[in-house]
Amino acid sequence: MRLQIERTVIQMDLWFTENHSDSVRFSIRVDKQLYSEQSEYQRIDVFQSLEFGRLLALDGYVMITQKDEFIYHDMIVHVPMAVKKDIKNVLVIGAGDGGTVRELCRYSTIEHIDLVEIDKKVVEVCEEYFPEMTVSMHDPRLDIHFTDGLRFVRRKQGEYDLIIVDSTDPFGPGEGLFTPEFYGNCYNALTDTGVLVNQHESPFYVNDAKAMCRAHERIKSVFPVCAVYQAHIPTYASGHWLFGFASKGLDPIKDLDEQHWNSLGIKTRYYNTELHKGCFALPSYVKEMLETGEVLDVRS
Amino acid sequence: MRLQIERTVIQMDLWFTENHSDSVRFSIRVDKQLYSEQSEYQRIDVFQSLEFGRLLALDGYVMITQKDEFIYHDMIVHVPMAVKKDIKNVLVIGAGDGGTVRELCRYSTIEHIDLVEIDKKVVEVCEEYFPEMTVSMHDPRLDIHFTDGLRFVRRKQGEYDLIIVDSTDPFGPGEGLFTPEFYGNCYNALTDTGVLVNQHESPFYVNDAKAMCRAHERIKSVFPVCAVYQAHIPTYASGHWLFGFASKGLDPIKDLDEQHWNSLGIKTRYYNTELHKGCFALPSYVKEMLETGEVLDVRS
Repeated sequence: MRLQIERTVIQMDLWFTENHSDSVRFSIRVDKQLYSEQSEYQRIDVFQSLEFGRLLALDGYVMITQKDEFIYHDMIVHVPMAVKKDIKNVLVIGAGDGGTVRELCRYSTIEHIDLVEIDKKVVEVCEEYFPEMTVSMHDPRLDIHFTDGLRFVRRKQGEYDLIIVDSTDPFGPGEGLFTPEFYGNCYNALTDTGVLVNQHESPFYVNDAKAMCRAHERIKSVFPVCAVYQAHIPTYASGHWLFGFASKGLDPIKDLDEQHWNSLGIKTRYYNTELHKGCFALPSYVKEMLETGEVLDVRS
Repeated sequence: MRLQIERTVIQMDLWFTENHSDSVRFSIRVDKQLYSEQSEYQRIDVFQSLEFGRLLALDGYVMITQKDEFIYHDMIVHVPMAVKKDIKNVLVIGAGDGGTVRELCRYSTIEHIDLVEIDKKVVEVCEEYFPEMTVSMHDPRLDIHFTDGLRFVRRKQGEYDLIIVDSTDPFGPGEGLFTPEFYGNCYNALTDTGVLVNQHESPFYVNDAKAMCRAHERIKSVFPVCAVYQAHIPTYASGHWLFGFASKGLDPIKDLDEQHWNSLGIKTRYYNTELHKGCFALPSYVKEMLETGEVLDVRS
């Protein structure tokens, strides 16, 4: 008879903390730091965590975790894809983690994707540590360009049916992707029925809300149709995250073809066409901030 | 000439932390602990914080903060009130902080409210520290009963147009308010067109999701109409919080009278009738958990 020795699995008391504001901290227990390097553009870290699986942090901010990345990627891809069903040519800016490309590649109607990521290191790290996100990074329809998105889009005219701006926050490497010049260039790079979707910050903490108002103001000055939609993303500050939908005429709800999208049989864990219609209905305080451009103190 | 002395305002390094799971912590910088007592039922704390204003914690869990309480109270009150416009008699269980009663008292059509709160101390503390939430606690239409909600509702038959269960989580003093017996008694206490609304936990962290599934299963076994709706509440675990809407026939969307509600001129900072329709559109993973009763591991 073998002697059974009970072993206790040691749960490390190692915590990764992101400051959501000067006075709010969100901390995730991690088991191991799997990777940590300073690239040419930013600090890149990968942690193994109990609650969220692996997580990628850029400059100390959570970009994606294995547990909730599906929410962000569902919402940044399937919302525009369900509105405009003849999308063939797509430009993705940022998104070196591969999640946006993975969701796009599920549409057989897409013929070509240009992915513009400034930091090659992000792609390499994600290919190593997030194989489930980078499954489509070698799709034959994909061209990856390691360059500045702002510069890349400047040269383009009427070329894309969809531009997705999957950027970091509006400081550091992502800063240029929130400028009026950039949005104007996106307008020019789109076809007449093209759609621009971007990560649009959050309405709750003051600094995020300022970035949200500023982005909306700028997109509104360029695009005639300019809507904002929301999702519950637990690992982003406040959990209340927004996306922008801008176009030269297509309406995100009136032009939604539910039956068509549902006939594609794309199985998703967050997105569905009922939620599509629901996610554009924003809380009154968010609507007011977007309309006035002023960040409200919502305290009672 | 007076000598100007620069004074630095000291920002205390004092942090209140709530564990959202064993591996996730949410921390709020507090300036002062304003109150702390053990009542007969639970530990009650009030903190002054920079980001959220004052916050009430029961047994170490954030119940409400001045910054985001409006979201919870808007959603637990205005959703049923906009569906059933002839609500006269209301039962509120829990809600000693006064926020739910404040929102209800904005409807002149309501004739009577029974508020059943087990812990008198919560009401006293909130009257002292949260005057903006307790403004209606002396409304002549209100009767406050300091007793157990489970026992109170047992004696009632066909009496209420609306029951709101504004409970703590399903452990400690709130436990009985998640039992099959309680939901059955609520059914009996409602009129034929009555509505039950309850705080319904959250789909994201495993223990919250289990409580969500269990509550839904139990309500479904009692009420023919049984829907779940969502809100963004940044100070609750994951920020993704749910409410239940149950009735003997009234439908939360088909029976919504938008025009009527909007004609009342009730100004709200979160709720609006567009959002009302949107908030019942749940993410696919939440729908699947509610349908199957099984908590999914959503990791990719």
